Amino acid sequence: MANNKETENLQQTDFSKWYLQAIQQGDLMDYGPARGTMIFKPDGFGLWESYKDAFNEVLKKEGIRNAYFPMLIPKHFFEKEADHVEGFAPELPWVTQAGEEVLEEPLALRPTSETLFGNAMSDWINSYRDLPMELNQWANVFRWEKRTLPFIRTSEFLWQEGHTAHATEEEARERTMKMLHYYTELVKEVFAMPVYEGQKTPSERFAGAVDTFSIEAMTKDTKAIQAGTSHYLGQNFAKAFDIKFLNEENQHTYVHTTSWGSSTRLIGAMIMMHGDEQGLVLPPRIAGTQVALIPVGNLKKNPQVLEKLQEIKAELTAKGFRVNLDDTNNSAGYKFNEAEVRGVPLRIEFGPRDMENNQVMIKMRDLDEKEAISLDEDLAEIIDARFDLMHQRLYDKAVAFRAENEHYDIDTMEQLTAHLEAAEANGERPGWILAGWDGTDESEAAIKEATGFTSRNIPFNPPMEKTVDLYSGKPAKYTVWYARAY
Amino acid sequence: MANNKETENLQQTDFSKWYLQAIQQGDLMDYGPARGTMIFKPDGFGLWESYKDAFNEVLKKEGIRNAYFPMLIPKHFFEKEADHVEGFAPELPWVTQAGEEVLEEPLALRPTSETLFGNAMSDWINSYRDLPMELNQWANVFRWEKRTLPFIRTSEFLWQEGHTAHATEEEARERTMKMLHYYTELVKEVFAMPVYEGQKTPSERFAGAVDTFSIEAMTKDTKAIQAGTSHYLGQNFAKAFDIKFLNEENQHTYVHTTSWGSSTRLIGAMIMMHGDEQGLVLPPRIAGTQVALIPVGNLKKNPQVLEKLQEIKAELTAKGFRVNLDDTNNSAGYKFNEAEVRGVPLRIEFGPRDMENNQVMIKMRDLDEKEAISLDEDLAEIIDARFDLMHQRLYDKAVAFRAENEHYDIDTMEQLTAHLEAAEANGERPGWILAGWDGTDESEAAIKEATGFTSRNIPFNPPMEKTVDLYSGKPAKYTVWYARAY
Repeated sequence: MANNKETENLQQTDFSKWYLQAIQQGDLMDYGPARGTMIFKPDGFGLWESYKDAFNEVLKKEGIRNAYFPMLIPKHFFEKEADHVEGFAPELPWVTQAGEEVLEEPLALRPTSETLFGNAMSDWINSYRDLPMELNQWANVFRWEKRTLPFIRTSEFLWQEGHTAHATEEEARERTMKMLHYYTELVKEVFAMPVYEGQKTPSERFAGAVDTFSIEAMTKDTKAIQAGTSHYLGQNFAKAFDIKFLNEENQHTYVHTTSWGSSTRLIGAMIMMHGDEQGLVLPPRIAGTQVALIPVGNLKKNPQVLEKLQEIKAELTAKGFRVNLDDTNNSAGYKFNEAEVRGVPLRIEFGPRDMENNQVMIKMRDLDEKEAISLDEDLAEIIDARFDLMHQRLYDKAVAFRAENEHYDIDTMEQLTAHLEAAEANGERPGWILAGWDGTDESEAAIKEATGFTSRNIPFNPPMEKTVDLYSGKPAKYTVWYARAY
Repeated sequence: MANNKETENLQQTDFSKWYLQAIQQGDLMDYGPARGTMIFKPDGFGLWESYKDAFNEVLKKEGIRNAYFPMLIPKHFFEKEADHVEGFAPELPWVTQAGEEVLEEPLALRPTSETLFGNAMSDWINSYRDLPMELNQWANVFRWEKRTLPFIRTSEFLWQEGHTAHATEEEARERTMKMLHYYTELVKEVFAMPVYEGQKTPSERFAGAVDTFSIEAMTKDTKAIQAGTSHYLGQNFAKAFDIKFLNEENQHTYVHTTSWGSSTRLIGAMIMMHGDEQGLVLPPRIAGTQVALIPVGNLKKNPQVLEKLQEIKAELTAKGFRVNLDDTNNSAGYKFNEAEVRGVPLRIEFGPRDMENNQVMIKMRDLDEKEAISLDEDLAEIIDARFDLMHQRLYDKAVAFRAENEHYDIDTMEQLTAHLEAAEANGERPGWILAGWDGTDESEAAIKEATGFTSRNIPFNPPMEKTVDLYSGKPAKYTVWYARAY
């Protein structure tokens, strides 16, 4: 149970405490017994299932099919791609024993499956007629990280990973960008989240990629969350796993591969973007419970109130809404609060007086006022319309919040330091910094060292172009988003 | 490519070779790099997705929600339920290291998740108002077995596992039986498979269960496959994990739990039941490709043949059929064979002469004759009807095959030995034996030792009741199915 008094301003004063409280009171998760693992409770898992359905539609449209590859990767597979093993080795959990038997070769729990798909594709691809080969899988993956946070960074998480092989660089790059754009579209349509699309700098690139692209979202503590990535892998994995095809000129040629992934951290990003002091605010399209029906007043004296609500529940359920009728013995106030902390997008209040007036009261989770709706109206139609409005409102609010916390006028380290000190002193969020970059690792490293800000991506459509490197003062080659990141 | 000559009689002479050939030529799978693992290729994985959709409908109807629990189980969890650890310990893969760090406590890859659900439910359940608590998860699980066979028994496999907690034994037993019946219904509706429902004998019981129930299917080599199990766990896990609730009389009481699972071995069972000498025969409702469109004759001379097929494809696809138009340069004969080995339920042949006659030829995978269908008819409607007939035919054929291979007249070890020797000498399948059982482990063990036959289950509706124990000659307490099993 949330005590609203206690949580007041918590989102501002202790965001991480606010977050952990929001997801537990919202009944989305619990902790697993092994370090850094979590249980996706039904309401939390349902959010993932909604995303999965939407993404599977994209795959269908694109003619990309789902497969399932084994989870265990022999050690020598990693060693085939030098950057890849270097990037992932510190985080790999190893199976070394089975029953009483010590394994001859340790097996890693997959952190990602480029090596497995690469190995299989080298068998499956023979000629240009086999290309493009485009596959996806939904899987659990493992990265043993020091600091974990539910949904955002867990030892085990769920994701989809797409792996494709193409005859030409051009085609592979086209697939890479197309999937990035789908991520942008889907997080907007499913989670009501605005993101910046852009290219990662080399220091933030996927281990083994030629180019990595990302979508980056801003949370309410103005940190950045990488919410999806798409990689052009060039011929790196093709060479490591010998994926060759006979082209139309009868020459053996290496394929060009891509990979792209999005994970359950999307759920964390969405909560950190839309949540408010009362806790979860779930976008209506994906909320586990979309409508909370709550009787008001003495039910024993007015049994017809509950009957009418049961009728409304049946009607809305038949129209495809996910409805919960709270007929427990708790007070109406308790129930209102319960629906709030669970982020239910819309609640319907109904009591004896409403019955007399032939109306229900509706309250949207993200608005303060209530609205009376006559029972002569088409309730389902009204709810549908309110949901579309709410979805758009959440998106617009997030865009507005982001705009308020973007800084375009910081061009030197002195300005950056002064900005951060002022923010700290005033209890304000540091925001994101749009800055010029000269293209050197040194600038990024120095900024990170001094401020904890890392380059998020080189946005395709930056709000403006910057001309001078924030650190070196040299002419900028790129305009980059810098932020503290999850 | 299948060479039909070579495979002739292979199903009879070398069933296991036939099976491996069928699933590879049918493009359902490939082998993974770690021992006993497999890749579910899109056509193979699609079969699982179809089952998943059907099972999720059942869960929805029953109000059972999906969750996702972590994969890694700390060693001490297993030790809480003595039978459970004894049953699973020999098969558990262990994570002992992550990056460079040696873990303080080894973590098992889940073979099943009673311990994890039990541990969480002990936190989540407080009062009778929290009951029943009914959850399901779709997950990958691990059992490091010595002998593996794709789909049937792999080191990693996919399954659903349901876990429920109830206030009373009666309710828990009701849930146990209800899920068993759903399995029976689903494998009939989805996979066109007949099974025997029944109770497992104690020696074949799930490790930690009070009672285990199973559905058992007969393959074409007359072995048995356990195709789904449902367990009444009594208070064993409730006591091991301290899952108590405050009942309506304000007393702390242990819950009664159940678990029930079905896995990707269903796919193997289905293939072994319906496949024929040519390879896969897929039930129409779940086949990845339901209709193969194959042009006949010289396409360059008759481009309108391909055009018409494209039109038919668009029409059938719009009606929801999964259609493949084979417009490669291969011969029609090659394409026919390709569709056969992939188990495509229906193929449509169409050439210049058919064009003149305003008809297509259709050929069902499980029938020899072809049928001419006028293009004036509603093709989609006809295909729908043919699919229903084919589904029923596959089911009926399997029932008939099973009946032919059931033996009710074997009542002594001498008769059993004679039966097996005769079968061996004649190159016939040994079938299943319906026999009396006195209820002792000794009888089962002796029969297994002498013949390799194990008790499959005590069927709820045996074809007849047996009165004498097959081994001891003592009065039978139960009638049991004995068979060699996968």
